[in-house]
Amino acid sequence: MSTLPTACAPAERNEGNHAKLSPDSPSTQRIRVCVAGYGYWGPQVVRNFHNLQSSEVVAVCDTSSKSLQRAHETYPEIQVTQDFGELVRTSQIDAVAIVTPVRTHYGLAKMALQNGKHVFVEKPFTCTSSQAEELIELAERKNLKIMVDHTFLFTGAVRKIRQLIEDGTLGELYYYDSTRVNLGLFQHDVNVLWDLATHDLSIMDYLIAAKPEAVVATGETHLNGVADVAFMTVYFPRKTIAHINVNWLSPVKVRTTLIGGEKKMVVWNDLEADEKIKIYDRGVQVSNGESLYKLLVSYRSGDMWAPKVEQTEALRNEISYFTECVRNNRRPFNDGEAGLRVVKMLEAADQSLRERGKVVQL
Amino acid sequence: MSTLPTACAPAERNEGNHAKLSPDSPSTQRIRVCVAGYGYWGPQVVRNFHNLQSSEVVAVCDTSSKSLQRAHETYPEIQVTQDFGELVRTSQIDAVAIVTPVRTHYGLAKMALQNGKHVFVEKPFTCTSSQAEELIELAERKNLKIMVDHTFLFTGAVRKIRQLIEDGTLGELYYYDSTRVNLGLFQHDVNVLWDLATHDLSIMDYLIAAKPEAVVATGETHLNGVADVAFMTVYFPRKTIAHINVNWLSPVKVRTTLIGGEKKMVVWNDLEADEKIKIYDRGVQVSNGESLYKLLVSYRSGDMWAPKVEQTEALRNEISYFTECVRNNRRPFNDGEAGLRVVKMLEAADQSLRERGKVVQL
Amino acid sequence: MSTLPTACAPAERNEGNHAKLSPDSPSTQRIRVCVAGYGYWGPQVVRNFHNLQSSEVVAVCDTSSKSLQRAHETYPEIQVTQDFGELVRTSQIDAVAIVTPVRTHYGLAKMALQNGKHVFVEKPFTCTSSQAEELIELAERKNLKIMVDHTFLFTGAVRKIRQLIEDGTLGELYYYDSTRVNLGLFQHDVNVLWDLATHDLSIMDYLIAAKPEAVVATGETHLNGVADVAFMTVYFPRKTIAHINVNWLSPVKVRTTLIGGEKKMVVWNDLEADEKIKIYDRGVQVSNGESLYKLLVSYRSGDMWAPKVEQTEALRNEISYFTECVRNNRRPFNDGEAGLRVVKMLEAADQSLRERGKVVQL
Amino acid sequence: MSTLPTACAPAERNEGNHAKLSPDSPSTQRIRVCVAGYGYWGPQVVRNFHNLQSSEVVAVCDTSSKSLQRAHETYPEIQVTQDFGELVRTSQIDAVAIVTPVRTHYGLAKMALQNGKHVFVEKPFTCTSSQAEELIELAERKNLKIMVDHTFLFTGAVRKIRQLIEDGTLGELYYYDSTRVNLGLFQHDVNVLWDLATHDLSIMDYLIAAKPEAVVATGETHLNGVADVAFMTVYFPRKTIAHINVNWLSPVKVRTTLIGGEKKMVVWNDLEADEKIKIYDRGVQVSNGESLYKLLVSYRSGDMWAPKVEQTEALRNEISYFTECVRNNRRPFNDGEAGLRVVKMLEAADQSLRERGKVVQL
Repeated sequence: MSTLPTACAPAERNEGNHAKLSPDSPSTQRIRVCVAGYGYWGPQVVRNFHNLQSSEVVAVCDTSSKSLQRAHETYPEIQVTQDFGELVRTSQIDAVAIVTPVRTHYGLAKMALQNGKHVFVEKPFTCTSSQAEELIELAERKNLKIMVDHTFLFTGAVRKIRQLIEDGTLGELYYYDSTRVNLGLFQHDVNVLWDLATHDLSIMDYLIAAKPEAVVATGETHLNGVADVAFMTVYFPRKTIAHINVNWLSPVKVRTTLIGGEKKMVVWNDLEADEKIKIYDRGVQVSNGESLYKLLVSYRSGDMWAPKVEQTEALRNEISYFTECVRNNRRPFNDGEAGLRVVKMLEAADQSLRERGKVVQL
Repeated sequence: MSTLPTACAPAERNEGNHAKLSPDSPSTQRIRVCVAGYGYWGPQVVRNFHNLQSSEVVAVCDTSSKSLQRAHETYPEIQVTQDFGELVRTSQIDAVAIVTPVRTHYGLAKMALQNGKHVFVEKPFTCTSSQAEELIELAERKNLKIMVDHTFLFTGAVRKIRQLIEDGTLGELYYYDSTRVNLGLFQHDVNVLWDLATHDLSIMDYLIAAKPEAVVATGETHLNGVADVAFMTVYFPRKTIAHINVNWLSPVKVRTTLIGGEKKMVVWNDLEADEKIKIYDRGVQVSNGESLYKLLVSYRSGDMWAPKVEQTEALRNEISYFTECVRNNRRPFNDGEAGLRVVKMLEAADQSLRERGKVVQL
Repeated sequence: MSTLPTACAPAERNEGNHAKLSPDSPSTQRIRVCVAGYGYWGPQVVRNFHNLQSSEVVAVCDTSSKSLQRAHETYPEIQVTQDFGELVRTSQIDAVAIVTPVRTHYGLAKMALQNGKHVFVEKPFTCTSSQAEELIELAERKNLKIMVDHTFLFTGAVRKIRQLIEDGTLGELYYYDSTRVNLGLFQHDVNVLWDLATHDLSIMDYLIAAKPEAVVATGETHLNGVADVAFMTVYFPRKTIAHINVNWLSPVKVRTTLIGGEKKMVVWNDLEADEKIKIYDRGVQVSNGESLYKLLVSYRSGDMWAPKVEQTEALRNEISYFTECVRNNRRPFNDGEAGLRVVKMLEAADQSLRERGKVVQL
Repeated sequence: MSTLPTACAPAERNEGNHAKLSPDSPSTQRIRVCVAGYGYWGPQVVRNFHNLQSSEVVAVCDTSSKSLQRAHETYPEIQVTQDFGELVRTSQIDAVAIVTPVRTHYGLAKMALQNGKHVFVEKPFTCTSSQAEELIELAERKNLKIMVDHTFLFTGAVRKIRQLIEDGTLGELYYYDSTRVNLGLFQHDVNVLWDLATHDLSIMDYLIAAKPEAVVATGETHLNGVADVAFMTVYFPRKTIAHINVNWLSPVKVRTTLIGGEKKMVVWNDLEADEKIKIYDRGVQVSNGESLYKLLVSYRSGDMWAPKVEQTEALRNEISYFTECVRNNRRPFNDGEAGLRVVKMLEAADQSLRERGKVVQL
């Protein structure tokens, strides 16, 4: 029995063996989860696993006793511990949610998989693609699920955009251009690409059917030893180009993505309360005129509309989907492979960045 | 006698032999101008030369008889002609304003200079840096002025930003990040960088004291045989990085530049009617904490203010400045050299674009 | 032959004997016009009568010789004069456009009508309803046309809203709520209601089919001897209520109207470049619940869309329509009666204002 | 010992015997509170009393067992009850927070005061001014505190505006013009004025030193038996005029207040995340010119700035201030008298509304 409401179900592109929403023989047991990491995002993950019918949080794990105390005050009934290793070896839990710094993902996930636990892991998946490949292979071997927390894929906005692409409303994709800037250095161990562009790369991976061909990244390191301003271009086949502008040193917060299609164009402003997505019936038609220099360019400028967008909490949708995948032995579409594809683009971007924008083929 | 109001006078960085605003022995003769090109921008140039006390428009030249008719209807007293060559040989005129497609700039400017006429020329200056260098050398030899129409340098907004940089208000510059997108393919012979990024390159050249080191450009060609979506990074010394996002296929018009400084940050939205420039007392301070992983990052979030910005028409300021430079034998700061610096960056960008983002050293 | 493009034709509610757009036996003679008043708005009126095929400007009249000189410089071929009385007696002109201060409208219009000239007159029509009635009667008797320049009725925005009301898209009208504020004391002889609210009253008169029942106005006089901040409520039958907020002392310019209907709601922001009108599929349904205190209120929150709105200059549409009405002997829908209805509401508002918001029945 | 941080301390206009922030002999006992009403706002009140050092929540009271269950799940240690009467008679509690529908305020508050409990009561204070007067008198007699929850007075925005008025920055006040509209019928027993305008009336009462003279209100009842769209004007001495526009049927949410002063003007947009308050150095100067009709009006158009505004939760500031007032036997500035002044304006507005805008003298 799926608790994921139909309206929230992410459209599935690759039918493959990914989870369906009406599984034939669903398990009805609650998934018992241990959440590792109770910093900024951990409490959100705990709350959502806690509130679902299909899961329960058995334990919260963190190296900081202060964090554990916070967890205990909010959820007196949940066990807290600093010893992840011990806990993961018990049969008390079915799955582990890893909400810790990136550098620890690989170690914790490996330990979990080795002990037969499913893994829900914060983005970006791992520090390197070889770590990701090893984890994927391990999970495969043990028939365990890995889901990478690409939360945006579960928002009403991204799902609406995917629908517009899939049903042909936008037409051939010309470009995807995202600006994601604000004042904030939340990460110490990764640069601004691994922190912010990961969102866009996972969204692109979900929206753009084609495989990326090459990456170019430029940027600069001002304050923290890692790049805090960066720009990234991803070349796709069929002239689709993607561009991401991320910045920890912007005085204003911007979360705007322009998506240009042959037929329609989209502006997604994630900071708008109500009208996050605007679809423009605008475009350009080109035809050859009499002479070489006279192209007949005509602009189409029609209506704009802002469709109502599903407002359910994205993380709730995602975690509900995770428990269904585990209970019904289905592979999530945001699985380890999806996480790996994003890590590969980040690795390429880092390489390009180090050489001031060198083209890196994928 | 300067007709350029003091408030409008562009701040002069390089004192050199550039024009001053209170020249000692000004000529008081009117500059007689021929305007070549009466398409979209030409009428603005004619109107401004016409309205100034220090200049008069003697003739308008265009290959299109329709355009000439339009000119004649508006200014019955001004001579119209299709024969630039004949006109430029007469002693009727002192200067030529070239407001034609880029590919014709070099030929027309050379003819004008050879015949002893000063040149006011539309941006970008020329198609190649060698053309620009030849024209500069020719003007130098004949003691004639070249001014490249980098109109934005004469807006209240850019002048206010330059002042904020020069007086140290912003502190060390971290980045310059411009987005200049809209729906429109106004040019057939140049790509979107030569059309739109030229503005930003001329502004950067004016604002950032240092010499650019390297250029990276990426982009894609969808409709017209030339790139219509492009992204350009310019590396400067001292970790200043500039980035330009230009796009002819955007459903919405954006003209926003973020400028991040060590002390203050600026958002310049040129589409705002009143508050084009906002200065944020925001920033980041970093100090080393106890351990390797604990950098003490503190955010400064203070007031914002929007200074009143000079509203005089920029082109009027610029053309007035041109006539002063000619009358007083001064070199304008937006001279052929400034035009050449911009052309060099565009050439580098084209080279990078062709190789999907190859780094091009300047 | 109508020069008013079909797309621009104002929807006609009262078929009556108002002008149609495909007249059976159109005159093809040019209407010869004298424009009285060449201040702020006069030049716009001259330009439009001048540019149309169906009319020509024979003379411009103003008491200020400076204004006449400006007119002469722009239109050397048009006669200029300070003596309206003399001119209006000649057979040189067919119609008079009165673009002078309100207090002079009655006298000039009367003189024009007495001499057999049609009248196009700036809003508000006259200072008093009895003046308006006298002019209407005079025009009727002499079979002359009066058109009151309610320019907004010829904008794409207002025509689109009228269409949405007429075709039932909005449903029953709940309210019309306009805010029209800015920094500016453009008028010395009338208060802010006569200056700014006139626009809204003429729009309401055009959009709301019912006759207004009562007026309440409040406001205050700070600087100029006349009210510079004012608020006006107009009660209509069937629970439609209109409200107008006008202010000469606002630091920001606002031109926003909310229109609430039973089925859909409209936000018209006239300062938006592209998306002036937004239509919201939002509303409230009320049904009686179990108990007295439990009304079942449900909110409908659906899509928003911004229809493309006709961008032709409103004044051009209006003046073209005027010439057609004159040539084809049709009564314009924005005739003297429309002007009179607005003046009556303004008179009632003045009376209410003087007594600090006393209700004035219409 | 005051727990109210200095930065949050509301500026005190009337020194009287209102609470000071550095009381000489503070009590240090925790205030024991019973919160009556656990609907929409109640949980916020409970959370804040719960989180403060200076208070504890002893019991939550509600007629709905569902609400009580919610309360119990969140705060297992807090007693829940449906019997307010019993609880209020015990010596377990020092104060009562009344967060119930308006019609019950008087009864509950009276019971609390009669039993010697201090009262924190939701806005609007009571249904009638005589109820308010009776409660004030009762509290006075028993030396108990009443605080009316005018939360906005404890926001950084309102406190900053008050400071700008008090230090003379704005100069003489011309007008206060608030728009507070959205889609929502949250109240069944009161009209939109009692629901939404109460906020503005309490803010005006706090900001404008003078006593209001007269009230005019207009509006209409469409759906619910009570006015859902309403407009209210309040006349103050010295030509200060206030206007409030409230609407439950607006497709968009607006929370904007314009405040015009002789020297500066303020736009307060409460929906802005960062720059809620903008101060404009704009205005008008009038001087007499040569003739009667030529007033010399000059516009001043200078800088705008957005001061950083205190972001602490307003309700936290307010509840902390309440406990201080109780502990130190001080009268809060938002006491019963403040609540009564607002109720009197609402009563006058209701009377005016019933007679379609009749002026009601205060």
